[in-house]
This record gives sequence, C-alpha cells and structure tokens, in this order.
Amino acid sequence: MKGVLDIPPELSEMQAWVLSGLGEVVDEIERALASQVPTVAELCRHVERFRGKMLRPILVLVAGAASGQPTDTLASDDLRRLAAVVEMVHMATLVHDDILDEAEMRRRAQTINDRSGNEAAVLLGDYLIAASFRLCASLADPEPSRLIGRVSMELCEGELLQIQNRDNLSIDEATYFEILEGKTAALVGVCTRLGARVAGASQDVQDAMDRFGRSIGSAFQVQDDLLDLLGSEDVVGKTLGRDLKKGKLTLPLIHHLASVSAMQRAVSIELLEAASERGGNTGGHMGSTATATSAPILEAMRRTGSLEYARTTAEGLVERAKRSLDVLDGSPAKSVLTLLADAVLTRDR
Amino acid sequence: MKGVLDIPPELSEMQAWVLSGLGEVVDEIERALASQVPTVAELCRHVERFRGKMLRPILVLVAGAASGQPTDTLASDDLRRLAAVVEMVHMATLVHDDILDEAEMRRRAQTINDRSGNEAAVLLGDYLIAASFRLCASLADPEPSRLIGRVSMELCEGELLQIQNRDNLSIDEATYFEILEGKTAALVGVCTRLGARVAGASQDVQDAMDRFGRSIGSAFQVQDDLLDLLGSEDVVGKTLGRDLKKGKLTLPLIHHLASVSAMQRAVSIELLEAASERGGNTGGHMGSTATATSAPILEAMRRTGSLEYARTTAEGLVERAKRSLDVLDGSPAKSVLTLLADAVLTRDR
Repeated sequence: MKGVLDIPPELSEMQAWVLSGLGEVVDEIERALASQVPTVAELCRHVERFRGKMLRPILVLVAGAASGQPTDTLASDDLRRLAAVVEMVHMATLVHDDILDEAEMRRRAQTINDRSGNEAAVLLGDYLIAASFRLCASLADPEPSRLIGRVSMELCEGELLQIQNRDNLSIDEATYFEILEGKTAALVGVCTRLGARVAGASQDVQDAMDRFGRSIGSAFQVQDDLLDLLGSEDVVGKTLGRDLKKGKLTLPLIHHLASVSAMQRAVSIELLEAASERGGNTGGHMGSTATATSAPILEAMRRTGSLEYARTTAEGLVERAKRSLDVLDGSPAKSVLTLLADAVLTRDR
Repeated sequence: MKGVLDIPPELSEMQAWVLSGLGEVVDEIERALASQVPTVAELCRHVERFRGKMLRPILVLVAGAASGQPTDTLASDDLRRLAAVVEMVHMATLVHDDILDEAEMRRRAQTINDRSGNEAAVLLGDYLIAASFRLCASLADPEPSRLIGRVSMELCEGELLQIQNRDNLSIDEATYFEILEGKTAALVGVCTRLGARVAGASQDVQDAMDRFGRSIGSAFQVQDDLLDLLGSEDVVGKTLGRDLKKGKLTLPLIHHLASVSAMQRAVSIELLEAASERGGNTGGHMGSTATATSAPILEAMRRTGSLEYARTTAEGLVERAKRSLDVLDGSPAKSVLTLLADAVLTRDR
C-alpha cells in the first residue's frame, strides 16, 4: 500500500499479506491477457505501464481479509482472481477514457491512442473488458459475473450522462452524484462487496461492504474536486482550467452557482470563462499561472461557503463509510479499511 | 428467415418456430439494454435500427432445435437468452467498427459516431458488451460466459491483426485465415456450439456444431471477397475499390499475388493501385465506373485462376460444414442447417 497510506507497525503483517497478494494479482492479470497475436501481447505489455496504486485490488483483498479470508495463508484463488478482474475493468476504462479525452500521456507513458491510434485503443479496451469477463466467469459462483456485468453497464451510463451534461452550468447536485455513482462509486462498491462475498460473508456484511466502498469512492471523487481547485499543480497534476475546459462541473462549483443571485451568477460565469481559457491554455504544465487566474472565482466560491460545503460532504461520506464497518468484528484488516477511509481526506494526490 | 433463404413447404413449421423465437429474442435484448438514463435508452433504441437478418440468433435457435430442443414448445429461456447474447456482442462490434471505419451510415440509419460522436459510440459499444455479458451470466451454467468472454477476446485479436496487416501486400493465406477466424468464424462457431450445449447435446455434438459454425462463417467471408469483386454495386453494396482503399486484402488477391512472377507482380500492383484510386473515389455509389476500372486487375486474377481458387475454397468449407452435421439425427432443424450452409454460396448479397 506504498503511496496509499502510512501503515502503523502493528499492521505491518497485514500490509505484507496485501503486498504479496498484489504480486499474485499482477501475475494473474498477465496470464489473463496472454495472446498468441504478437501485436496484442505487445499492446498489453505497454498497458502495464499505466498501473497505479492498485486501489481496487487492494480493496478486494482487504475487504476479503476483514470478512473471513485468513491472512496467515495466501489469498484464495477466487479472491486473487476477482482482484485481477476489477483492475482489468479499471484498465479498460482508462484506455477508452484516453480516447475520449484525446490524452497523449498517462503516468509518464504514452497513451494507446497516441501511440497506436484510436482503432487500436478501441480494440485493446474491448480486449481488456472481454478478458476481465472471461476471468470472472472462471469462478464457480456466477454472481460475481453478474455484478461485474451490471457495474460495467453503470460505468458507461455514468460516462454518457457526464458527456450529455458537458458545459451544462445548470447541472444539479442530484445529477452530479448520479454521474459520480456510475463513474466511480459503483465499481469501488463492487470491489469491497466481492471481497466479502468470496470470503464467505453473510448477505448483510456484503451489503455493508458495498456501502463502504461506494461511500469512500464518492468521497474520493469529491476530494478530487477540491484538490483540483486547491492543490498546487505539482502535487495534483491537474488544473481548474483543465476541468473547466473539458466542461466538467465540480461539486464546489455546482454549489456556488446554485447559491448566488442571478446577477452574481453572471459575474461568476464570466470569471469561470476567464479561468477556463487561461487554465486550458497552460496545457497542464503551468499550474501557478492557472491558479493566479482562477483566484477571483476561487474567492467567490469561498464567499458562498462552497469549498467548505464540498469538504463537509466528503467528510460525511467518510463517516458513513466507517459506520458501515460496524457489522465487522475487529481485525487488522478492519483497521486498514478505516485507515483507507480516513486517507481519502488527507491525501494530497 | 426471410431474406436469408427460401424455405420449402415441408420446413414451414420449423420456420414459424424460429420466427416466433426471434420475436422473443428481440424482447430479451430490449429488456437487457433497458436503462434509467434517458440518453442511454435513446441510443439503444437507435441501435435497433442496425438490426439485420439476425443470422447469429437464428443459428443459436436452429442449432438448439437440431440438438434436442423441442420445437412444439417455445425455445427454452436459456436458448432465447443466448440467442440475444450473441446478437448483442455482434451489435457491439458494429458500433465500434463504425468508429474505426469512420462510417456515416449503416443500413440506411446514421451510425452512432456520426450521430452522437465518437465518445458516445465508444461508450455505447462498451455498454452493449457489458449488457451481453451480464445477460449471459444470468444462466446457471457458467460455461457460456467463459465461451463468450473467450470469443470476444478473439474478435479483438482478429481486428487488431487486420489493422496490423493493413496495406500489407505480402500477407500470406495463413494470416488471412487467422484474421477471418477471429473476426468472423469464432463467434459463428460459438453460436452453434451454445445452441447445442443448452439443448443438452453431448460434448462431441457440441464440438461438431462448433466446426459447422466456424466453417460456414469462414465460407461466408470468402464468398464476401468474391462478391466484392464480381457482384454489381447495386447488389452487394461494396466495391473492389473500397476494400482496396481500406487496405484490406482479399483471398483472390492474396492468391494472385503469390502466384505470379516478380515482374507480373509489379504490374498487378500498379493495376491495383489504379483500381483502388478510382474505386475509392466513387464513394461507393458509382459501382459501374469502379468495375470498369478494375477490369484489368480482375482479368489478371482470372489468368492465375485466383477467382476459381477462392470459389473452390468456399465450396470446400461448406462441404466441411455439412459433413460436421453427420453426428446429428435427421430433423427439420438439421435440414435448415444444411440449407443455410448451401445458401452461403448462392447468396448475392
């Protein structure tokens, strides 16, 4: 969990178990993507360079351990496979998202669309989805396949709803959360639910773990909105201008525009457009300029308490997540889940 | 099976059973794609306009009937669902193919990419794949999900191999058939295999039905190459020039280029380029001009027996398909499978 959170000494055994599990998950993914077609094998090798913190597989493993999977032996085959499945679904969304965003770089590696063209990127994303479904169907229990199928549909619904609302300055909070649920929270909820299920937890515990995952997934996204606004470019790697240029409205902004008078709204929209133009032109490499230009709109959002509102919303979601854990007996894995929930609010990247 | 083949009177009951089954398959697809998100529901309604002859669901149903599914009652839930699953996988490939081809029209309806943009088309294709996997996982038997996952990977491998070999005038017959297996034959083989499996057929019969499907799928594609060369524009809706402009090499051409001397090869490539330029410029609406321009290269292919070679190959594949049916007892459904195999060679569209 390097880079995700600092683990206190008493949880170091748990951490070692997760890290060794992740190693096996990586092997599982490699086997699942193996292809006799050299060009496909080569593309899959490149995609491995996009690998991040592997938050989703970590959640499957830790949720499993918190729900009955022993941690003095290796993770069960099914737990390891499901951890690989959710990471592959996530990889597929990254490859297809990069086409939609016309992105050139991801994690210091060239995107598939920039490197091999949009055609290859569409097909490679499809290959990753198909491989994840196939691996999921290798389990004897059909329920994970049903859940992964359903959540993959929700991912697309969330993205399509976001596209439909691009540049919609009147988007309401309900729609914002509907997009967020589909795009982010639903898959995180399935990660923790599947971990619990495959570890043999009761239906009640599975439902509670789903709520836990959904809540931290939502909190993560709201916190992302705040980091976009407040973080320095070096730390968060994004700019207000970039979100705005993409027509993506964040929670603080939605709150702000819904809180002000019609006249102040017109002023805010002008400030936004100025920040957007300037921020968009920085190409994501001149954060300090973007921050300077966005100061007036930031100031306006502070006056309506919109940053505070988003912060409180994220905190409420993390509290909700932690309350979901009440159904579990105490364990090192449960402590790690609590730490992961808290880390959503303290992370700076 | 209207539009697919003429059914003699003694098979009219069988035909009625298939047609009523197809009606239920359409309902099943509609239920599987249902979305609370209006923009997703609207896109799915539009995709229905791409529906063609539904050859794949027909093959699932008839293979089922030939392998034990009674035809005096409705198709079983599982048979109907699997027929819907293969059609949805096929629909997903159409939506993503249209992005790759930058196509504007499909079956007299606007493509999703042309109508709603590439982003929506990528995501809608993903939604269709996810919905097909979810429906497939609703069966108690996990094997269909494994097969559908595997064949979806093969589809992508076939397409990626084709992209890699675009404009490769030295492509060999083995690679041609590897592309064809992945892009077309594998899914058709799964259609007939799944129909047999869900009707309770033995492993031997399932394997034979897979061979049947693969063989007619391959024959269909080779026949397509011939129709591209010989059919009048009005009938086949394609031109030699279009295939060539897309850099797609057909079996007659591969045979021709492999059969001639180095000097004749250079001449043929020049003739090809002339036909390609002229054909490509017709935009698919001036077939007679394209045919006139392509006459010299057609003549060259005739001299090396390349058209005859492709024709014989297709006939051999159809023979192989029909021999696979030897494991089945006689039945109206078996007769329909034989008719479908023969129809591959006599179709003119």
